[in-house]
Amino acid sequence: MSVLTESERAAALEGLDGWTFDAARNGLARRLTFGDFGEAFAFMTRVALAAEKADHHPDWSNVWNRVDILLTTHDAGGVTARDVALARAIDAIAPSLP
Amino acid sequence: MSVLTESERAAALEGLDGWTFDAARNGLARRLTFGDFGEAFAFMTRVALAAEKADHHPDWSNVWNRVDILLTTHDAGGVTARDVALARAIDAIAPSLP
Repeated sequence: MSVLTESERAAALEGLDGWTFDAARNGLARRLTFGDFGEAFAFMTRVALAAEKADHHPDWSNVWNRVDILLTTHDAGGVTARDVALARAIDAIAPSLP
Repeated sequence: MSVLTESERAAALEGLDGWTFDAARNGLARRLTFGDFGEAFAFMTRVALAAEKADHHPDWSNVWNRVDILLTTHDAGGVTARDVALARAIDAIAPSLP
């Protein structure tokens, strides 16, 4: 699994919803805000299942209704197709929440 | 809900398992490491339920098998009895995991 080139990464970001490239952390970043903690954690639970299925896991944090996600492939040292695929899966989960 | 004095906080830490005071973030901190992501997220799910029950929520992050928790009472601007109570609840959950 190789790190995407800058243009590959830019093309991938075009197709995603609300993600940016975090250069300092070398990953794809998205912040999501929910109505409350319960909604935020319900979302996290669905992402956890998608991550486990993909065998690729987010670096993420949560403060009450806010979830910050960073996707990077530690073994490869940057953003790979696996991160883009997980970002796409997360985008599919996000709007389906109440 | 008032912020604990330094000596009250120190006394509370004595009764907790693996927590330290993070002065920079003004909260009680604990890092837990599990066998894999599934175990880490199972733990997080139980903590989420305890937090919701207490109506007091952690600032936390997860990277694969690692969970970093910070407990602080944002409204009070520091560590209060609510943080100590949640830390105790988390300690009760942690060793019960497989």
